[in-house]
Amino acid sequence: MIKIGIVGDGYTAEELTRLLARHSEAQVMAITSLFNVDRGFDEVFPNLSRYTSVKCEAMDRSNLSSFVERCDGIFVALPHGQAVPVVKEAVLQGKKVVDLGADFRFKQVKVYEEWYHTTHEAPELLEEAVYGIPELFADQVRNTKIVANPGCFPTSAILGLAPALKAGLLDTGTIIVDSKSGVSGAGRTPAMNNLFCEVNENVKAYNVCTHRHAPEIEQGLTWMAGKEIVISFSPHLIPMSRGILSTMYGSLTRSINRTELQEIYADFYQGQFFVRVLAAGQLPMTRAVYGSNHCDIGLVIDERTNRLVVVSAIDNLVKGASGQAIQNLNLMFGLPETCGLEGAGLLP
Amino acid sequence: MIKIGIVGDGYTAEELTRLLARHSEAQVMAITSLFNVDRGFDEVFPNLSRYTSVKCEAMDRSNLSSFVERCDGIFVALPHGQAVPVVKEAVLQGKKVVDLGADFRFKQVKVYEEWYHTTHEAPELLEEAVYGIPELFADQVRNTKIVANPGCFPTSAILGLAPALKAGLLDTGTIIVDSKSGVSGAGRTPAMNNLFCEVNENVKAYNVCTHRHAPEIEQGLTWMAGKEIVISFSPHLIPMSRGILSTMYGSLTRSINRTELQEIYADFYQGQFFVRVLAAGQLPMTRAVYGSNHCDIGLVIDERTNRLVVVSAIDNLVKGASGQAIQNLNLMFGLPETCGLEGAGLLP
Amino acid sequence: MIKIGIVGDGYTAEELTRLLARHSEAQVMAITSLFNVDRGFDEVFPNLSRYTSVKCEAMDRSNLSSFVERCDGIFVALPHGQAVPVVKEAVLQGKKVVDLGADFRFKQVKVYEEWYHTTHEAPELLEEAVYGIPELFADQVRNTKIVANPGCFPTSAILGLAPALKAGLLDTGTIIVDSKSGVSGAGRTPAMNNLFCEVNENVKAYNVCTHRHAPEIEQGLTWMAGKEIVISFSPHLIPMSRGILSTMYGSLTRSINRTELQEIYADFYQGQFFVRVLAAGQLPMTRAVYGSNHCDIGLVIDERTNRLVVVSAIDNLVKGASGQAIQNLNLMFGLPETCGLEGAGLLP
Amino acid sequence: MIKIGIVGDGYTAEELTRLLARHSEAQVMAITSLFNVDRGFDEVFPNLSRYTSVKCEAMDRSNLSSFVERCDGIFVALPHGQAVPVVKEAVLQGKKVVDLGADFRFKQVKVYEEWYHTTHEAPELLEEAVYGIPELFADQVRNTKIVANPGCFPTSAILGLAPALKAGLLDTGTIIVDSKSGVSGAGRTPAMNNLFCEVNENVKAYNVCTHRHAPEIEQGLTWMAGKEIVISFSPHLIPMSRGILSTMYGSLTRSINRTELQEIYADFYQGQFFVRVLAAGQLPMTRAVYGSNHCDIGLVIDERTNRLVVVSAIDNLVKGASGQAIQNLNLMFGLPETCGLEGAGLLP
Repeated sequence: MIKIGIVGDGYTAEELTRLLARHSEAQVMAITSLFNVDRGFDEVFPNLSRYTSVKCEAMDRSNLSSFVERCDGIFVALPHGQAVPVVKEAVLQGKKVVDLGADFRFKQVKVYEEWYHTTHEAPELLEEAVYGIPELFADQVRNTKIVANPGCFPTSAILGLAPALKAGLLDTGTIIVDSKSGVSGAGRTPAMNNLFCEVNENVKAYNVCTHRHAPEIEQGLTWMAGKEIVISFSPHLIPMSRGILSTMYGSLTRSINRTELQEIYADFYQGQFFVRVLAAGQLPMTRAVYGSNHCDIGLVIDERTNRLVVVSAIDNLVKGASGQAIQNLNLMFGLPETCGLEGAGLLP
Repeated sequence: MIKIGIVGDGYTAEELTRLLARHSEAQVMAITSLFNVDRGFDEVFPNLSRYTSVKCEAMDRSNLSSFVERCDGIFVALPHGQAVPVVKEAVLQGKKVVDLGADFRFKQVKVYEEWYHTTHEAPELLEEAVYGIPELFADQVRNTKIVANPGCFPTSAILGLAPALKAGLLDTGTIIVDSKSGVSGAGRTPAMNNLFCEVNENVKAYNVCTHRHAPEIEQGLTWMAGKEIVISFSPHLIPMSRGILSTMYGSLTRSINRTELQEIYADFYQGQFFVRVLAAGQLPMTRAVYGSNHCDIGLVIDERTNRLVVVSAIDNLVKGASGQAIQNLNLMFGLPETCGLEGAGLLP
Repeated sequence: MIKIGIVGDGYTAEELTRLLARHSEAQVMAITSLFNVDRGFDEVFPNLSRYTSVKCEAMDRSNLSSFVERCDGIFVALPHGQAVPVVKEAVLQGKKVVDLGADFRFKQVKVYEEWYHTTHEAPELLEEAVYGIPELFADQVRNTKIVANPGCFPTSAILGLAPALKAGLLDTGTIIVDSKSGVSGAGRTPAMNNLFCEVNENVKAYNVCTHRHAPEIEQGLTWMAGKEIVISFSPHLIPMSRGILSTMYGSLTRSINRTELQEIYADFYQGQFFVRVLAAGQLPMTRAVYGSNHCDIGLVIDERTNRLVVVSAIDNLVKGASGQAIQNLNLMFGLPETCGLEGAGLLP
Repeated sequence: MIKIGIVGDGYTAEELTRLLARHSEAQVMAITSLFNVDRGFDEVFPNLSRYTSVKCEAMDRSNLSSFVERCDGIFVALPHGQAVPVVKEAVLQGKKVVDLGADFRFKQVKVYEEWYHTTHEAPELLEEAVYGIPELFADQVRNTKIVANPGCFPTSAILGLAPALKAGLLDTGTIIVDSKSGVSGAGRTPAMNNLFCEVNENVKAYNVCTHRHAPEIEQGLTWMAGKEIVISFSPHLIPMSRGILSTMYGSLTRSINRTELQEIYADFYQGQFFVRVLAAGQLPMTRAVYGSNHCDIGLVIDERTNRLVVVSAIDNLVKGASGQAIQNLNLMFGLPETCGLEGAGLLP
């Protein structure tokens, strides 16, 4: 049994615990918290009653080394800028670690430092860190001890555009990503913006063209296209708890028909259990992936403007965070990537 | 592998299929439909893509016998009044059947006929039919071939009040059940009342003191108390998809303290995996059981009025329908009742 | 033009400003704030752009006297325990004041102090303060300078039960009030309980039989019945922004038919514009009063148990707070009580 | 008093009645219905109780002439394809008519016939019909008897892009409109797609690049730019009742700074009460216009890609339908366009 430690006690920590309760090869042994020390994690999240008996423990520098020692695999579920000490200790002890935050996602430290307005404390580890989208980088994930788990918006955008970019179908200067997200991506810390009455019966755009996930999406798309890509990225907050739908636009470099397009996508994701390319004419919706690790992709050719429109749907807490993190961990430990993660979305 | 057939293609059929996809001993082999014949069930419900390859088939009298033949266990997920032919055929062929509708829930045929304004077509089967709340009637369920799966409101009310009634704590003439339900209980048939714009940002009471679940709750409470009980029952529709919270009031027959009350409930549900009696001072919420087969129960003594207030929470589609139906099936086939049903609620 | 000052900058202050923008005889001249000093109130609430040009000002002891001087009528929209200095200054200057908090609602200071765990700083003003439900106490409101604006739950419960109690129809020892509330009643201060992800797709009971509105409801019902009433009161939080639906139960003291009951209610509220007694067979819903100052009331006789069930619906921010406050102000200034408040609920 | 007739009894008819109840110069005298004949319109929509006493009447050919006779102004709130007989009769009798459907929106009958798959029965009236966005075409509206009230998506898109197009700021071949809509736009007819459980906790794209509002948007944008425009238009359904947020993208034809851009928009909408151009750095949200006739517009220059991003917010039932219809009627009758329409959005 792989012994798991989770650093953090927010929604992604809850979701890791919920999912791992069904995992046959791994078990959560320790969880750290700032405000809930000594409380049972199932008191913090009563849905977990019967599924975990772990009590939250404090995580200060003195506890860090012992915490890492007790675990085989560690998930870091902290706000960006706080992962470095844990990751360093894990590396020191030779343990495997998945960071769900942004600290190890960028290959170029200056991009991270510019967009996150901070200095990276361990740039030397960036090279070892693998950007963990298993459908694209499974081999690297299998061979590393540090996985940078992708952001939720980037997961939806990169999975949606990768096949078209690999196939050279898109004019790389024309790409626009318009994403609609549920609120759980904002975490569980009280803030006026996330109050029910501020979100309910409301939709708004925020951080248009300035959101930190823009350069992360660009890095991924650039890898896929083999040339530099800059995009316009607009996230929107909509009144639901879970789910991201990304609608992506790009001009086609050549004319292509529906059948060929569908085949390119189907071939690209051949054998990938979690990515479901919908039949021509079908469009995804977030409800179909709710609580699951799937990513659904739908394709439209706009013949009047010669554009491709790709729509992708994920659950931001699962494929966009904790589910993908477990998928990465599975690969790091030589398990099938689907281990503990199969399951249909909750509908309705 | 137990071969399963599902008669019906609405939300409870979807939920049976979703849950059975994780069941190690049973597999859905056939599903019938009125409007989706020959379509893959995962086309009707795209969340099920990768989890079922069953195509919907028509169910007319000519198909009924062959349908039943191909199955070991049958779930009937039809509106009330339509289950009799299927149940009769199953009995004839010696198959096991769980009816999720109301047709076999009442021991007194006249109560059924009075509240449902119809004539029962097979009253002779009512005696064999077992009212399937496994926490209360497991032995009978194990020994029958016909289970009447309880209604959603009755499940929440009977589980909530059973321990207090068994212990004689309540003045049986004072019981009031005030329930709040999500909308999925109304099914998937288009109707103005269930339109998003009619339900959203709205709460209303409906069928106050005339709802058909009132006599079903009364039957269950009467069994528990050992004497005739008549209640006031008010259901309310609230803007959410899943979940029922029932708040129940009754005058205490004697003074009792918190500790004793908690023990009575804890003892009553000792060893029952799916019922979670919350610690004193805690109250349940539907989110904690969302998508799961649990029933959470919280207890309050109102010392100023000498009343007991019990609050119970279930997911109406799982413990209130499909989950409990599988729990019953497990017992009928000699399996552990939790088989395929363990899993924490989805939160947030 | 009546010059209005508002102390506080939360949802009820917003709602006062929104409603007063349509008032022909009153105008908001000043608003105080803790965190938004010097910001336009239409920056804080962008829906008010074009409807107010007031900038928020700080309210410290040194500003208080000048603030009151500039106003003819003052609304205090602060958390309980903070209204006394403002009300005292208003009294000193002979101005009219409506307190939307709890500080002046109780005639017996010990009830306030016991339930609010605090000492009242101006018990001598409680006698002058009028409990402002205009449909019940219009004459007193017209003749006072201090109105204690009722709580949201009490408004819904007292309006719903008043006619039955006045007519002696209810056994006063059997009354239960089960209320369902939107989230805006909890205000705009960030707290984990009010986060979108904690409230959405969820219903829970809270403060069952211990909520501070219980004694306030009891005080009002006692006035109506002319004898001491103690109730069981259970509030519930449901996933919507606005609205309270209260379902109230009581045993009938005599047999009564539908027609007579409807007449008793219709007569009691004869000429009251904002209370709408629904036709027999109709039940209220909060959407029908959304954003309006109406209170809808529906009546059911449960003949099987000889109980009366009353269901009432209000918008907690309007009839349950700011709308009723303006209705009281209208009376205090000799205006028709409907002035500026007419308007149908927003549906859908 | 202008006597008003409304043909239709859905949400837009309700909204016309709600808004006109506050109108000092017009009064609803007659409403037609298919399914609610002889019922009070306040029975159909209980929020309107106290605000209308009109009973629904049938509208067959025999009733049409008398219906039109009794009215000075007529709103047609029917599905597309059904307005022609009413409009013809109104023209015959010299009455003023606003059609809220699509039948008179297109100047080129072939565009209408192609996208709506039908034959237009009165193409000769298309020339007289004025496309009624009062902020752009007030003079024409004042001088016609037939107004084609714009679609909800087109209103949001055309108001958002008009100033930039007029100023020649946009490369007209690069325009993308990505819209997010509440569900009330789909009307009140029961359909599976609009059921609460199908919409709640869900977001989906639909009719991507094939929606009938695409050519209507293109017609409006073409008028503004003075040259042919073809766009990609993707509507999305999100879980709320009211509101449309449109996010629009286009490449800039020249470099421009924030200040200049803000001035272009501010100048363009100078004196327009209902359009609010937000300050630089602010983005709109639908809650701020909820239930109101306002359109809020926010502007972002994406310097990294040299694109302009415009975000606009309206309430689809008000500025996107009934409110704008009344605004047009006001102009047709020589009233100030704001008459009866002032009022802040409902927030929260």
